[in-house]
Amino acid sequence: MENLAMIQSYTAIGLGLMVGLGALGACIGIGIMCASFLDGAARQPEMIPQLQTKVFLLLGLIDASFIISVGIVMMFAFANPLLSVIS
Amino acid sequence: MENLAMIQSYTAIGLGLMVGLGALGACIGIGIMCASFLDGAARQPEMIPQLQTKVFLLLGLIDASFIISVGIVMMFAFANPLLSVIS
Amino acid sequence: MENLAMIQSYTAIGLGLMVGLGALGACIGIGIMCASFLDGAARQPEMIPQLQTKVFLLLGLIDASFIISVGIVMMFAFANPLLSVIS
Amino acid sequence: MENLAMIQSYTAIGLGLMVGLGALGACIGIGIMCASFLDGAARQPEMIPQLQTKVFLLLGLIDASFIISVGIVMMFAFANPLLSVIS
Amino acid sequence: MENLAMIQSYTAIGLGLMVGLGALGACIGIGIMCASFLDGAARQPEMIPQLQTKVFLLLGLIDASFIISVGIVMMFAFANPLLSVIS
Amino acid sequence: MENLAMIQSYTAIGLGLMVGLGALGACIGIGIMCASFLDGAARQPEMIPQLQTKVFLLLGLIDASFIISVGIVMMFAFANPLLSVIS
Amino acid sequence: MENLAMIQSYTAIGLGLMVGLGALGACIGIGIMCASFLDGAARQPEMIPQLQTKVFLLLGLIDASFIISVGIVMMFAFANPLLSVIS
Amino acid sequence: MENLAMIQSYTAIGLGLMVGLGALGACIGIGIMCASFLDGAARQPEMIPQLQTKVFLLLGLIDASFIISVGIVMMFAFANPLLSVIS
Amino acid sequence: MENLAMIQSYTAIGLGLMVGLGALGACIGIGIMCASFLDGAARQPEMIPQLQTKVFLLLGLIDASFIISVGIVMMFAFANPLLSVIS
Amino acid sequence: MENLAMIQSYTAIGLGLMVGLGALGACIGIGIMCASFLDGAARQPEMIPQLQTKVFLLLGLIDASFIISVGIVMMFAFANPLLSVIS
Amino acid sequence: MENLAMIQSYTAIGLGLMVGLGALGACIGIGIMCASFLDGAARQPEMIPQLQTKVFLLLGLIDASFIISVGIVMMFAFANPLLSVIS
Amino acid sequence: MENLAMIQSYTAIGLGLMVGLGALGACIGIGIMCASFLDGAARQPEMIPQLQTKVFLLLGLIDASFIISVGIVMMFAFANPLLSVIS
Amino acid sequence: MENLAMIQSYTAIGLGLMVGLGALGACIGIGIMCASFLDGAARQPEMIPQLQTKVFLLLGLIDASFIISVGIVMMFAFANPLLSVIS
Amino acid sequence: MENLAMIQSYTAIGLGLMVGLGALGACIGIGIMCASFLDGAARQPEMIPQLQTKVFLLLGLIDASFIISVGIVMMFAFANPLLSVIS
Repeated sequence: MENLAMIQSYTAIGLGLMVGLGALGACIGIGIMCASFLDGAARQPEMIPQLQTKVFLLLGLIDASFIISVGIVMMFAFANPLLSVIS
Repeated sequence: MENLAMIQSYTAIGLGLMVGLGALGACIGIGIMCASFLDGAARQPEMIPQLQTKVFLLLGLIDASFIISVGIVMMFAFANPLLSVIS
Repeated sequence: MENLAMIQSYTAIGLGLMVGLGALGACIGIGIMCASFLDGAARQPEMIPQLQTKVFLLLGLIDASFIISVGIVMMFAFANPLLSVIS
Repeated sequence: MENLAMIQSYTAIGLGLMVGLGALGACIGIGIMCASFLDGAARQPEMIPQLQTKVFLLLGLIDASFIISVGIVMMFAFANPLLSVIS
Repeated sequence: MENLAMIQSYTAIGLGLMVGLGALGACIGIGIMCASFLDGAARQPEMIPQLQTKVFLLLGLIDASFIISVGIVMMFAFANPLLSVIS
Repeated sequence: MENLAMIQSYTAIGLGLMVGLGALGACIGIGIMCASFLDGAARQPEMIPQLQTKVFLLLGLIDASFIISVGIVMMFAFANPLLSVIS
Repeated sequence: MENLAMIQSYTAIGLGLMVGLGALGACIGIGIMCASFLDGAARQPEMIPQLQTKVFLLLGLIDASFIISVGIVMMFAFANPLLSVIS
Repeated sequence: MENLAMIQSYTAIGLGLMVGLGALGACIGIGIMCASFLDGAARQPEMIPQLQTKVFLLLGLIDASFIISVGIVMMFAFANPLLSVIS
Repeated sequence: MENLAMIQSYTAIGLGLMVGLGALGACIGIGIMCASFLDGAARQPEMIPQLQTKVFLLLGLIDASFIISVGIVMMFAFANPLLSVIS
Repeated sequence: MENLAMIQSYTAIGLGLMVGLGALGACIGIGIMCASFLDGAARQPEMIPQLQTKVFLLLGLIDASFIISVGIVMMFAFANPLLSVIS
Repeated sequence: MENLAMIQSYTAIGLGLMVGLGALGACIGIGIMCASFLDGAARQPEMIPQLQTKVFLLLGLIDASFIISVGIVMMFAFANPLLSVIS
Repeated sequence: MENLAMIQSYTAIGLGLMVGLGALGACIGIGIMCASFLDGAARQPEMIPQLQTKVFLLLGLIDASFIISVGIVMMFAFANPLLSVIS
Repeated sequence: MENLAMIQSYTAIGLGLMVGLGALGACIGIGIMCASFLDGAARQPEMIPQLQTKVFLLLGLIDASFIISVGIVMMFAFANPLLSVIS
Repeated sequence: MENLAMIQSYTAIGLGLMVGLGALGACIGIGIMCASFLDGAARQPEMIPQLQTKVFLLLGLIDASFIISVGIVMMFAFANPLLSVIS
C-alpha cells in the first residue's frame, strides 16, 4: 500500500505542473493572438467575418495542446499506468 | 489512513499550482486583449458594437482553458481519482 | 488527527499560491488595460462615456478569473473536500 | 496542540505570499496606469478633471483584488477555517 | 511554548515577504509614474502645478497598498491572531 | 517492490516536466505565429486562402515536437523502459 | 531560551529580505526617474530649477516606502514584538 | 537491486529535463521563424512557393536538435549505458 | 552559546542579502541615470556644468538608500539587537 | 557497488542539464537566425540561393556546440571517465 | 569551537553574495554608461575631453557602492563582528 | 573509496553546469551574430564573400570560450585534479 | 579539523559565486560597450584612434570591479581570514 | 580524509559555477559585439580591415575575464589553496 501511495502522491504534483503550465501558456498565447485580431478588425471592419472564422479555427488549434495535456492528466488520474507494474 | 492523507496533501499543492498559474495566465492574457480592444474602440467609435461582441466571444474562449483547469481541480477535490487504487 | 492536520497545512500553502498569483495577475492585467483606456480617453474625450462602460464590463470579466480563484479558496477553507476521504 | 501549531505555521507563510504578491501587483499595475494618465494630462490639460475621476474609479477597481486578498488574509488570521476540522 | 515559537518563527518569514515585496513594488511603481510626470513637466512647464497635485494624490493611492501591507504586518507583529487558537 | 515504486515516482515528476514545458512552448509558439498570420490577413484579404493552408501546415510542424513529447510520455507511462533492468 | 533563539534567527532572515528588496526597488525606481529628469533638463535648461524641486519632493516620496521598511526593521530588531507571547 | 533503482530514478528526472527543455526551445524557435515567414508571404505572395520550401528545410534543421535529444532519451530509456558498470 | 551562534549565523546570511541586493540596485540605477546624463551632455555641451551638479546631487540621493542599508548592516554586525533578548 | 551507483546517479542529472540546456539554446539560436533569413529572402528573392548556402553552413556551426555537448554526453554515458578512479 | 565555525561558514556564503552581486551590478551599470559615452563621442568628437572627465568622475561614483561592499566584506573577513558576542 | 565517490559525484554535477551553460551561451550568441550577417548579406550581396570570412573567424572566436569549457570538462573527467590530494 | 573543513567548504561555494557572477557581468558589460564602439567606428572612421584609446581606458575600469573580486577570491583562497578565529 | 573530500566536493560545484557562468557571459557578450561589427561591415565595406583589427583586440579583452576565471579554476583544481590549512 505504501508504494501505491508514494507513486500517486508524486503523480499529483506532476499533474499540477501539466495543467498549470499548460493553462498559463494557452491563456497568454490566445491573448497575444486575439490582440492582433482586434487590431485588424478595428482597421478593416469589412474583414471581420473572414478573420473571425480564422480566429476560431486557430483557437481550437492553440487549445489543442492544452486539451491534449488535460487528456493525459485524465488518463493518469483515473487509470495511472505507472501503477501497473506493481499490483 | 496515512496513505490517504499523504496523497491528499500532495494533491492540495498540485491544485494550488493549477488554479494559481491558470488565473495568472487568464488575467494577463485578457488584459493584453482588452488593451488593444480599447485602442481600436477609441479610434473607430462606430466599430464598438461589432468589436464588443467579438471581445465577449474571445473572452469566453480565453477563459475556457482556465475554466477547464477549475473543473479538473473540482474533480480532484471532491472525487480524487488518485485514491481509487487504495481503498 | 495527525492526518487531518497534515492535509490542512499543505492546503494552506496551496491557497496562498492561488490567491497570491491570482491577485498579481489581476492587478497587472487591469493596469495594462486601464493604461490604454486613459490613452484613448485623452485623445478622444467625446468617447469617454462609451469607453468607460466597456471598461467596467471588461474589468468584471478580468476579475472573473480572480473571483473564481477566491471562490475555490473559500470552498477549500470552509469545507475542504480533500478531507472527506478520511473522517 | 501540535496539530494546531503546524496548521497555523504553514498558514502564516501562505498569508505572506497572499499579501506580498498582491501588493507587488497592485503597486506596479497602478504605476503603469498613472504613467499614462500623466502623459494624457500633460498633453490635454483641459481633460484633467474628466480623466481624474476615471483614474480614481479605476484605482478602486485595481485595488479591489488586492483588498479582497487582504480580506481573505484577515479571515484566515482571526478565524482560520482550516482549524475547524480538528477542535 | 514550542508551539508558540514555531508559529512566531514562520510568521517572521511571512512578514519579511510582505514588507519586502510590497516596498519593491511601491518604489518601482512610483518611479515609473514620476518619470512620465517629469517628461510632461519638461514639455509643458505651465502644467506643473496642475500635474503636481495629481502626482501627490496618485502617490498616496499607490502607497496605499503598501501601507495596508505594513498595517497587516503591524497587526501580526503585536497581536498575532494566529496564536489565539492555542493559548 | 520498493525499487519499482521509487522509479515510477520519479518518472511521474519527469513526465510532468515533459508535458508541462512542452505545452507551454507549443501554445506560446503558435500564438506568436497566429498573431502575424492575422496581421497579414487583415492587410491582404485576398491572401487568406493561401496563408491559411500555410498556417495549418506550420501548426502541424510546431505541434510536432509537442506530440513527440506526448508520445514519449505515453511510452514511459505504459511500458516504462527504465524498469526493464529490474524485473 | 531555544524558543527565543529560533524566533530571532528566522526574524534575521526576514529583515534581510525587507531591507534588501526595499533598497533594490528604491535605487532602480529613483534611477528611472532621474534619467527622465536629466533628459528634460538637457532639452529645456530654463526648466531646471522648477524640475529640480519636483525631483527632490518625489525622491522623498519614493524613498518613503523604503524608509518605512527600515523603520519596521528597526522595530523588529530592538523590540521584536513576536517575542512578547513567550517571555 | 537498490543501486539499479537509484540510477534509474535519477535518470528519469534527467530525461524529463532533456525532453521538456528541448520541446520548449523547439516550439518557440519554430514559432519565431514561422511568424516572419507569414509576414514575408503576406507582402510578396509570388514568393510563397520558394519561401515554403525553405521553411520546410529549416524546420527540419531546427527540429534536428530536438530529435537528437529524443534519440538520446530513447537510448537512455531502453539501454541505459550508465548501468553497464554495475551488472 | 548555541543559541547565540544560531542567531549570528542566520544574521550573516541576512546581511549578505542586504548589501548584495542593495549594491546591485545602486550600481544599475546610477548606470541608467549616468547614461542619460552623457546623452544630454553630448547634445548640449553648454549644459554640462548645470547638469553635472544635478547628477552629483541625485547620485547622493540614489546612494542614500544603499548607505542606509550599509548602516543597518553595521548596526547588526557590531551590536546585533536580536541578541538582547537572550543574554 | 554503492559508490559506483552514486556517481552514475549524479552523472545522469548532469547529462540531463547538458542535453536540455544545449537543445534549448540551439533551437532558439537557429530560430532567430532563420527568421532573419526569411525576411531577407522575401525582400530579395534573387538572393535566395546565395543566402541559403550560407544558412546551411551557419546552421552546422550553431549546431556544432550542441553536437559537441551530445558527444560529451555519449562519452560520459558509455565510458564514464569519473569511474576510473574507483574500479 | 563549533559555534565559531558555524558563524564563519554562513558568513562565507554571505560574503560571496555581497561581492558577486555587487560586481555583477557594477560591471553592467558601467557598461550601460560607457555605451552612451561612446555614442556621444562618435557624434561630437570635439566633446570628448569634456565627456571623458565626466565619465571618470561617474565611474568612481558607480564603483563607490561596489567598493563599499568590498570594504564591508574585508571587515567581516578579518574582524567578523558577529563573533564578538561569543568569545 | 567513499571519499573518491563523493568528489566524483559532485564533480559530475559541476561538469553538467559547465557544458550546459556554455552550450546555451554559444548557440544564442552565434544565433544573434548570424542573424545580423544574413541581414547584411541580403542588403549587399556583393559583400557576402568578405562578410563570410569574417563570420567564420568570429565563429571560431565565440566558440573558443565554449571549447575551453569543454577542454576543462575533459581534464576533470579523465584526470580529476581534485582527487590528487587523497590517493 | 572538522571545523576548518566546514568553513573551507562553504568558502569554496562563496568564491564560486564571486568569480562566476563577476565574470558574467564583466563579459556582458564589455560586450554592450564594444557594440556601440563599433557602431561609432563604422560611421566615423576618422574617429577610431580617439575612440579606441577611450575604449581601452574604459575596459580597464569595467574590468576593475572584476579584478577586485578576483583579488578578494585570492585572499580568501590562500589566507582565509575567516579561519583566524579558530586556529 | 573525510575533511579533504568534503572541501574538494564543494570546490567542484564552485568551479562549475565559475566556468559555466563565465562561458555563458563571454559567448553572449561576444555575440552582441560581433552582430554590430557585421552591421557596420555590411554598410561600409571599406572599413572592414580597420574594424576587424579592433574586433580582435576587443575579443581578447572580453575573453580576458573568462580566461582569468579559467586560470582561477586551474589553480583551485591542481593546488586547491583551501586545503592548505588542514594537511
